[in-house]
Amino acid sequence: MLEESAKAAWEYGRQFLMDGKVADYIPELGKANPVYLGLCIKTTDGKTVEYGDVEQRFTMQSISKVVSLSVALQHVGFDKVFSKVMMEPSGDAFNSILKLDTASSRPYNPLINAGAIEVVSLLAPQFSFEQILDFTKELCMDDEITLNESVYHSEERTGDRNRSIAYLLKSKDVLEGDPLAACDLYFRLCSMNVNARSLAGMGLVLANGGVSPATGERLLSAQVVRTVKTLMFTCGMYDGSGEFAVEVGLPAKSGVGGGIMSCVENQMGIGTYGPSLDEKGNSIGGGNTLKYLSRALHLHMFDSEND
Amino acid sequence: MLEESAKAAWEYGRQFLMDGKVADYIPELGKANPVYLGLCIKTTDGKTVEYGDVEQRFTMQSISKVVSLSVALQHVGFDKVFSKVMMEPSGDAFNSILKLDTASSRPYNPLINAGAIEVVSLLAPQFSFEQILDFTKELCMDDEITLNESVYHSEERTGDRNRSIAYLLKSKDVLEGDPLAACDLYFRLCSMNVNARSLAGMGLVLANGGVSPATGERLLSAQVVRTVKTLMFTCGMYDGSGEFAVEVGLPAKSGVGGGIMSCVENQMGIGTYGPSLDEKGNSIGGGNTLKYLSRALHLHMFDSEND
Amino acid sequence: MLEESAKAAWEYGRQFLMDGKVADYIPELGKANPVYLGLCIKTTDGKTVEYGDVEQRFTMQSISKVVSLSVALQHVGFDKVFSKVMMEPSGDAFNSILKLDTASSRPYNPLINAGAIEVVSLLAPQFSFEQILDFTKELCMDDEITLNESVYHSEERTGDRNRSIAYLLKSKDVLEGDPLAACDLYFRLCSMNVNARSLAGMGLVLANGGVSPATGERLLSAQVVRTVKTLMFTCGMYDGSGEFAVEVGLPAKSGVGGGIMSCVENQMGIGTYGPSLDEKGNSIGGGNTLKYLSRALHLHMFDSEND
Amino acid sequence: MLEESAKAAWEYGRQFLMDGKVADYIPELGKANPVYLGLCIKTTDGKTVEYGDVEQRFTMQSISKVVSLSVALQHVGFDKVFSKVMMEPSGDAFNSILKLDTASSRPYNPLINAGAIEVVSLLAPQFSFEQILDFTKELCMDDEITLNESVYHSEERTGDRNRSIAYLLKSKDVLEGDPLAACDLYFRLCSMNVNARSLAGMGLVLANGGVSPATGERLLSAQVVRTVKTLMFTCGMYDGSGEFAVEVGLPAKSGVGGGIMSCVENQMGIGTYGPSLDEKGNSIGGGNTLKYLSRALHLHMFDSEND
Repeated sequence: MLEESAKAAWEYGRQFLMDGKVADYIPELGKANPVYLGLCIKTTDGKTVEYGDVEQRFTMQSISKVVSLSVALQHVGFDKVFSKVMMEPSGDAFNSILKLDTASSRPYNPLINAGAIEVVSLLAPQFSFEQILDFTKELCMDDEITLNESVYHSEERTGDRNRSIAYLLKSKDVLEGDPLAACDLYFRLCSMNVNARSLAGMGLVLANGGVSPATGERLLSAQVVRTVKTLMFTCGMYDGSGEFAVEVGLPAKSGVGGGIMSCVENQMGIGTYGPSLDEKGNSIGGGNTLKYLSRALHLHMFDSEND
Repeated sequence: MLEESAKAAWEYGRQFLMDGKVADYIPELGKANPVYLGLCIKTTDGKTVEYGDVEQRFTMQSISKVVSLSVALQHVGFDKVFSKVMMEPSGDAFNSILKLDTASSRPYNPLINAGAIEVVSLLAPQFSFEQILDFTKELCMDDEITLNESVYHSEERTGDRNRSIAYLLKSKDVLEGDPLAACDLYFRLCSMNVNARSLAGMGLVLANGGVSPATGERLLSAQVVRTVKTLMFTCGMYDGSGEFAVEVGLPAKSGVGGGIMSCVENQMGIGTYGPSLDEKGNSIGGGNTLKYLSRALHLHMFDSEND
Repeated sequence: MLEESAKAAWEYGRQFLMDGKVADYIPELGKANPVYLGLCIKTTDGKTVEYGDVEQRFTMQSISKVVSLSVALQHVGFDKVFSKVMMEPSGDAFNSILKLDTASSRPYNPLINAGAIEVVSLLAPQFSFEQILDFTKELCMDDEITLNESVYHSEERTGDRNRSIAYLLKSKDVLEGDPLAACDLYFRLCSMNVNARSLAGMGLVLANGGVSPATGERLLSAQVVRTVKTLMFTCGMYDGSGEFAVEVGLPAKSGVGGGIMSCVENQMGIGTYGPSLDEKGNSIGGGNTLKYLSRALHLHMFDSEND
Repeated sequence: MLEESAKAAWEYGRQFLMDGKVADYIPELGKANPVYLGLCIKTTDGKTVEYGDVEQRFTMQSISKVVSLSVALQHVGFDKVFSKVMMEPSGDAFNSILKLDTASSRPYNPLINAGAIEVVSLLAPQFSFEQILDFTKELCMDDEITLNESVYHSEERTGDRNRSIAYLLKSKDVLEGDPLAACDLYFRLCSMNVNARSLAGMGLVLANGGVSPATGERLLSAQVVRTVKTLMFTCGMYDGSGEFAVEVGLPAKSGVGGGIMSCVENQMGIGTYGPSLDEKGNSIGGGNTLKYLSRALHLHMFDSEND
């Protein structure tokens, strides 16, 4: 059943690849091959189901916002983090400056650029990039995650909008420490090289309430995981979050590198990779794969028994 | 267990009543008594648990947006409705005009004023107010819902911002028909007199996937109910929706009349009434009652078994 | 000298007619012939110089904002008018709602739609359309100005954005009286049928400090005229006002009907007609005619003797 | 006549000093004494009239935007400058980011921070600070202008909003070169120490069409001077520019250090110093002095002979 649905979902998703296009605002990302599509599902009872390009590496991009938020909530604490960033969907583009200068000096949520840069600035004094990378490996159950140097340098070269955001946060006394240092760590985190399998691993830990099914070790507290999944549900898919919630009904976080990391409560983690993006910046193949899967297996959070 | 938790939740909620204040932007609403707090829970297996002021009547206000959306999805259809209004959280105030004139000519979602007025304009040619009132009675399992004439007239006298929104939608060819007629129906729907028990009834139907547990009759299709609950989860509590999702983790819709209607998948409908509002416009007593209840009974959508 | 420069200016202006296009957001305006170009200059020492289509009638549109502002300052008074509308250039489109809902509940100035509708609402209780029409005839030294019924009805049919603005002003207690009545008077004023000669007449009265050179009668006080000319200089040419001030350096007011009314201190009134508009909504032929004229005759307000 | 009016104007202006307050967003500025008021007038026929604190030094702040714009127009050229910055009043606060991210990637005009930083970035590759300082000395006919080191360092420490603007301009490919280097030069230019007499000198050169009456030397071309004066008229007094144009009717540029530099065509340059500011950020004493002077001597650009 799971295997069949997964295969059908992957085949369904592939049909949309030509309708999207690869991100090119960071030149290095423009080199990705739009025909890739990988799907990996890892279940809490130990099964792994995979189709397509699941070993292909790509950079986490915005999915790393889930990592940095998780680490910050776990180690810096809820009170500090949410005194610096709100929990509200913003209704604006991921890289918007607008609300920051009109509605609230705190970024709307930790999954837009402004919020993530703020969160990363809270990590910078306590954690090196290598330490967060190590934690990411654990979370993804993948020892081979590395820094993609060429994407990192491409981010650096084209990161002026993020630097502008960081300085604006600094000018409002929201960001502490050096704005450029926060940006540098942020660029590195965006440039971690994962694959669909790593993302399925990370989704699995979230599905499992923060405990690694591999080792039985608790990596994140239940409260951190609940918070992160809620924010993924309301804000994880850029300005397409509301529609994704209605259509698919699962917590998910996408990155412009082409990845989507998702999870189903107590059941499974899901990772997809497809660098062809829709106009909202979400993987068009991955998003449609998840949509099919959600319907086929009745995974929508608001599917009733009476359906 | 349910009774005890419900009682403790209600007692917890009461402590916050003095921290909020009654809505007064519509003069008639300003007459409400801020010390009221009522909690009604109706379960799918037929139990009713109630504390406090559950028979006290008040106007639905924004909770009627769930009614009009449900009717429109059911009878006008998904395609038409979502060609006129988006599904995205807006990040702006409920009565904002901003995005409408800058970001998109379609309102961001059907639970902010602009979106609800648009939805109501789609109903106006097909349904009289009385017909929608009758359907609301069924949905709430409450025969005694009436139009509160004095609130309706107060809405009419102070409704110029909504008229401005309606004309703006008209100028963009999004709203069809007469803007003032749409506003009139909208004001009437906001002025339906319910109580906490009616809201629990409505929540119960939603929890039960659209089927009335009282009659076994399907009032709304599964797809309508899933959509409505998802939008309640992402956009139901004004600009406090994100925080409510993180803290409480249930679909809910509030109204400035003091009501909150919520539901727990396959388990229960919940109605609260407390006209003392927090600074986001949500019932401060009702919201805190739901927060307590969610924690005590582990109702949060993203509570894992591993908690 | 004046004749020669005027002729050369008109010939210069004609070259640009094909680069613009006729306004079509009000259907009736779309019928204008883009090849028309008329220039009329009336000097304080009694000379009239004319080229091209100076008798061709067209509707005043936004130029009527100068009329309504003048009447309001003269008869309602500075204090009342400027308690309702500011004097600042807005930097936004003429029909913007944005600032009204974010920056200030008073419109930024009386020459954008919101400000003009507000000003007209102050006139509505005291003056009939016919009375303002009569005053316009005097100001323009033109007895044949009438209401263009078909444009007026076209305005009415397409005026929902202005109605939205009027209701928004009403909701903020800035506009007094009936928003729809204010809009109706506003639409009528926009629909007064003038020609380039009438506009030169009006400009002449302004150039002459408010005294009609024809009759020697003072039509407007010196303070009203000074204020109106200043606002024309800073805000008269839509979002092209700043560039027009730099390039031409004269008070001027344009209308999407194709007219521009301008004046040179103590020297002359200038009227142009050319319905082909640039992308800012200003007559492309008229604007370039004025630019040439300003350079040829050194009319720029900030031309020094040392040039 | 001039002496008497000037004295009366200065006495009039002094009455308002206690209604304003000294700028404190840059800590070093907060040390200024709010009771200072100086007025210096220099006429094209060689007269100097002075009252009050005309030798007191203070930093130019935004008045330096006129210097950098003049140098850029003269040496970088109109085409390059106006391909990078518009000529329109913005209607927003001087340090706004809003329009930059929504309406146009080019700043609205060279007299708001974004525009001035852009202009300074065009100067940075060609001119050292010392060279621009030398030119400022000539323009102001004041050899003793120096860099105020403590204000410069205070600017540097609190300049994150300007850095945010610079990086945003960089991200939009509008700013060329290093954003932080542009900001550094901008901070230095803001920190040039002038007095009311220097500003009167600068105003005199502008009044005189760009030719120094002291030396007979042309410092700026007629076209540069005309452009600069026009922009001062439409945008020189922050968000109070429109009202100042109506009330005073002269080109003027204010700085939060307390200075205002103004001029009357072919007649005089005017400098005022009064660090007590109104709520728009303009010197309250200086502004009222200019208002009185304009009325007493009929200096308003749109005063007709028929007044």
